[in-house]
Amino acid sequence: ENRARFLIKCPDQPGIVAAVSKYLYDHEANIVASDQYTVDPEGGEFFMRIEFECPDLLVRAEMLEEGFLPLAEKFQMNWKIMYVSELKNIAIFVSKEPHCLLELLWEWQSGDLMANIALVISNHETAREMVESLGIPFYYIPANKEIRIQVEQQQKELLGQYDVDLIVLARYMQILTNDFVKGYENRIINIHHSFLPAFIGAKPYERAYQRGVKMIGATSHYVTSDLDEGPIIEQNIGRVDHRDNEEGMKKIGQSIERSVLARAVKWHLDDRIIVHRNKTIVF
Amino acid sequence: ENRARFLIKCPDQPGIVAAVSKYLYDHEANIVASDQYTVDPEGGEFFMRIEFECPDLLVRAEMLEEGFLPLAEKFQMNWKIMYVSELKNIAIFVSKEPHCLLELLWEWQSGDLMANIALVISNHETAREMVESLGIPFYYIPANKEIRIQVEQQQKELLGQYDVDLIVLARYMQILTNDFVKGYENRIINIHHSFLPAFIGAKPYERAYQRGVKMIGATSHYVTSDLDEGPIIEQNIGRVDHRDNEEGMKKIGQSIERSVLARAVKWHLDDRIIVHRNKTIVF
Amino acid sequence: ENRARFLIKCPDQPGIVAAVSKYLYDHEANIVASDQYTVDPEGGEFFMRIEFECPDLLVRAEMLEEGFLPLAEKFQMNWKIMYVSELKNIAIFVSKEPHCLLELLWEWQSGDLMANIALVISNHETAREMVESLGIPFYYIPANKEIRIQVEQQQKELLGQYDVDLIVLARYMQILTNDFVKGYENRIINIHHSFLPAFIGAKPYERAYQRGVKMIGATSHYVTSDLDEGPIIEQNIGRVDHRDNEEGMKKIGQSIERSVLARAVKWHLDDRIIVHRNKTIVF
Amino acid sequence: ENRARFLIKCPDQPGIVAAVSKYLYDHEANIVASDQYTVDPEGGEFFMRIEFECPDLLVRAEMLEEGFLPLAEKFQMNWKIMYVSELKNIAIFVSKEPHCLLELLWEWQSGDLMANIALVISNHETAREMVESLGIPFYYIPANKEIRIQVEQQQKELLGQYDVDLIVLARYMQILTNDFVKGYENRIINIHHSFLPAFIGAKPYERAYQRGVKMIGATSHYVTSDLDEGPIIEQNIGRVDHRDNEEGMKKIGQSIERSVLARAVKWHLDDRIIVHRNKTIVF
Repeated sequence: ENRARFLIKCPDQPGIVAAVSKYLYDHEANIVASDQYTVDPEGGEFFMRIEFECPDLLVRAEMLEEGFLPLAEKFQMNWKIMYVSELKNIAIFVSKEPHCLLELLWEWQSGDLMANIALVISNHETAREMVESLGIPFYYIPANKEIRIQVEQQQKELLGQYDVDLIVLARYMQILTNDFVKGYENRIINIHHSFLPAFIGAKPYERAYQRGVKMIGATSHYVTSDLDEGPIIEQNIGRVDHRDNEEGMKKIGQSIERSVLARAVKWHLDDRIIVHRNKTIVF
Repeated sequence: ENRARFLIKCPDQPGIVAAVSKYLYDHEANIVASDQYTVDPEGGEFFMRIEFECPDLLVRAEMLEEGFLPLAEKFQMNWKIMYVSELKNIAIFVSKEPHCLLELLWEWQSGDLMANIALVISNHETAREMVESLGIPFYYIPANKEIRIQVEQQQKELLGQYDVDLIVLARYMQILTNDFVKGYENRIINIHHSFLPAFIGAKPYERAYQRGVKMIGATSHYVTSDLDEGPIIEQNIGRVDHRDNEEGMKKIGQSIERSVLARAVKWHLDDRIIVHRNKTIVF
Repeated sequence: ENRARFLIKCPDQPGIVAAVSKYLYDHEANIVASDQYTVDPEGGEFFMRIEFECPDLLVRAEMLEEGFLPLAEKFQMNWKIMYVSELKNIAIFVSKEPHCLLELLWEWQSGDLMANIALVISNHETAREMVESLGIPFYYIPANKEIRIQVEQQQKELLGQYDVDLIVLARYMQILTNDFVKGYENRIINIHHSFLPAFIGAKPYERAYQRGVKMIGATSHYVTSDLDEGPIIEQNIGRVDHRDNEEGMKKIGQSIERSVLARAVKWHLDDRIIVHRNKTIVF
Repeated sequence: ENRARFLIKCPDQPGIVAAVSKYLYDHEANIVASDQYTVDPEGGEFFMRIEFECPDLLVRAEMLEEGFLPLAEKFQMNWKIMYVSELKNIAIFVSKEPHCLLELLWEWQSGDLMANIALVISNHETAREMVESLGIPFYYIPANKEIRIQVEQQQKELLGQYDVDLIVLARYMQILTNDFVKGYENRIINIHHSFLPAFIGAKPYERAYQRGVKMIGATSHYVTSDLDEGPIIEQNIGRVDHRDNEEGMKKIGQSIERSVLARAVKWHLDDRIIVHRNKTIVF
């Protein structure tokens, strides 16, 4: 593929678009899609995502990146170029409930998840068969509060070994340490089974049922050291009524969780998400 | 009209439906719609709403109600019959933002709100013209924390004078005292401009914007002494993204608030809502 | 299980509910859920679905049904009792695209599809592995216009052999003959990949793209001899925009198809659907 | 205001974005928002909308436009600059049902419709009071098939007199002649009360009820000489079930119509819509 994505973040000032688009033009790159956003028109932050095509892209990549340095410096840019042909390596963490894992495997099988599912790590054996039947390595690492450090040590070794770019917590019910999280900043996506910030923490469906809400939801977000407080990527909801008990809400919720997590993962893989403070810009 | 609604709440046991439907049949009533719900199959609470038609209903009403007493006693029923021809009297409370009030007035004008809007009470003069132009009495009662008791005294007198059955808080930004609320149990409907229980309290759009949510919502609920904790009647949401600032969220939210409040008020007027503990059953 | 569902269809007249509920009470049946609907208040058709529990239900079933005959005659009822413990046998027909089949298999695996998936019939080999790996018989019957009669003969034999109650066309791209359809009246559910009656017939996504619609949809319906004209059970839609080409619409559409078909099949299995002329009443 | 929108349509080729953004930069314009789209990566059509701010914009406008001519010629651009400070003049056409008109008036009153509602034309007197009470001229022009030409003559005179930029058919139930439509190409927005292309033509709710659909919809589109076949701008739907008769569907539909039309009108006023063949690109 000769396609890549240019992600830029810098203080807003006139001339950024002109400079970048001229640079790409001078390198024979054709802009396929372009999005930009300024947080605050007056002296705010500027964000841009440009998808472009360029003949012999991989041959020129180094030149393209090095040549950009002066411009990047001039505009104080935080930037990167992501090459579509370089598939990201994903690790999926899962506990007992397999629905989110299954959705991802399914999307992957039908060619809609442009990534390499490198491995699945679980603190249960439940999902082994479905994972291994697809030729994906499955690692069973029992986990609990007491052995958290050792468990994460094992996990980190595997993540390093498989050169993992993105961790997806597909209903992984263990809390990660700050230390672990910091090693994968904005690269761990979690699905929380409520419409955040409602029902932060454990047992959201139970609490939703107790509260008598008329809609339940799910939220995918990047994981930070504050539980369920990381930048939200995507949310959705489903209707419930008085006939739906906790179990019924859970069933309805599972199908929301599946699609909300899959969408977030795809957007991440498409380099559509830029994190700014505790929010996401999704282009 | 010869139409009425029978609302029943009692401990579940076999034979309730048979007894009630036989009673109605013996009084020449034809059942038009019927809904029932049991909280818990084993020894739970039973709820029923029957809509029926009966020739000369208003003539027979007294007889119909008195004749039911033995059955009601036998099954330990909490019950009432609501006659469709007896329109409920509504008082609408509003502060500065008129969108929810406008929606209700509009529905009422086009004949979709089967009630008598008896009066509008506001702590601002903003809405006077649009209310009075429809021939509805408008009362301006300035309000703030310090004079709460006196204000509510004035309001209660008006509510009594107009024989009000239902109070609708259409973005009324004053907190009501427990004393006031108790006088209208399950008869005050509020619209809260968030997806409860997220963003309880003041400035939900501001906090939604700060949190970076991808959806905002509105919740209509009965008012209890716990702020924003009363039984939820209806909720809905709308999508937002990083381009929507607080002001943009507010705009999107207003149209959600309008429809969520109007739906709740109509369901109440149709006697579709039964409150059970801190939840609603909406038939 | 001691649970069953009573489905009734008869000319509306006073006393039906009283008679049926008394009958159930006399047989010690406790009504768990009850829904009714009258097409036209004046001399219209009456429909009822009662879910009830009764000790030793299967032992009493015969007696319960026979004893009801006089009442059924009196009210000219079209009725049946469906026993929850008697799982229905499903045959799934599928062509190349497996997404709807997969959704059904998945729901079935997680215990949410209360039925026996008796067999899968396909005019392609694509799905064999995933079906057989679950221990479900898979039959490959190549099909095309010319050999329709013979193909259907083979299919009918299999359906008879497995005592099939419900046929689900999970993206089966062959047209069925009138003769075949008549043998399974209101027992063949199809998923059409458009928001009917828009884009009846072939290639709906292609035509949706050509027309420039902003939403695409899916429709599940009972199959009749008029192509895509049978009674609609459920519909849903998804948003698209100018960036979505035909392929993109198809992807978005597939996830709508999956959920719309699964919902329709579950409602059928729960005996919630009554067909009246060319419409469905879904209780 | 110093804000304007640059709309461009031209054959795709490398360098367009670079050239335009450099041009704007050279004229001290700061790009606030930018969207682009290419129909077909290979030799397709390119579309761009740039929102920019520029000091003393109105003073420089002429210079800005003239200076752009060489570039426009080079890239064979179809282009225009729309100045936010130049409010568009709207004429609203309405028949008996006022709900869509009301929604627009309401949005306008609350400052959310950035336009000048120049006049309202109706073939009924129904809406006169609500329109005139807002100080907007109201013209009653009775209309029917036989006098179509004369009626349109009168209408065209008024449109000229008020210098109308956009005609909104807010449930105007008369068909316009090709001649009339051609005079306002892509400048007449209609609301059709169905999910197009379902139920083209008259009485869509009646036909939706007959067909037994489970969702009804509304579609806003530009008017062309083919009835209900013009480029679709926006669509939305609402759920209905067997309990909703034609009248019920109409009520549910009206609130969908209101919001779908208002959104389309706002997008047009924001110069977000580009028509390409028979489709819209909505930036």
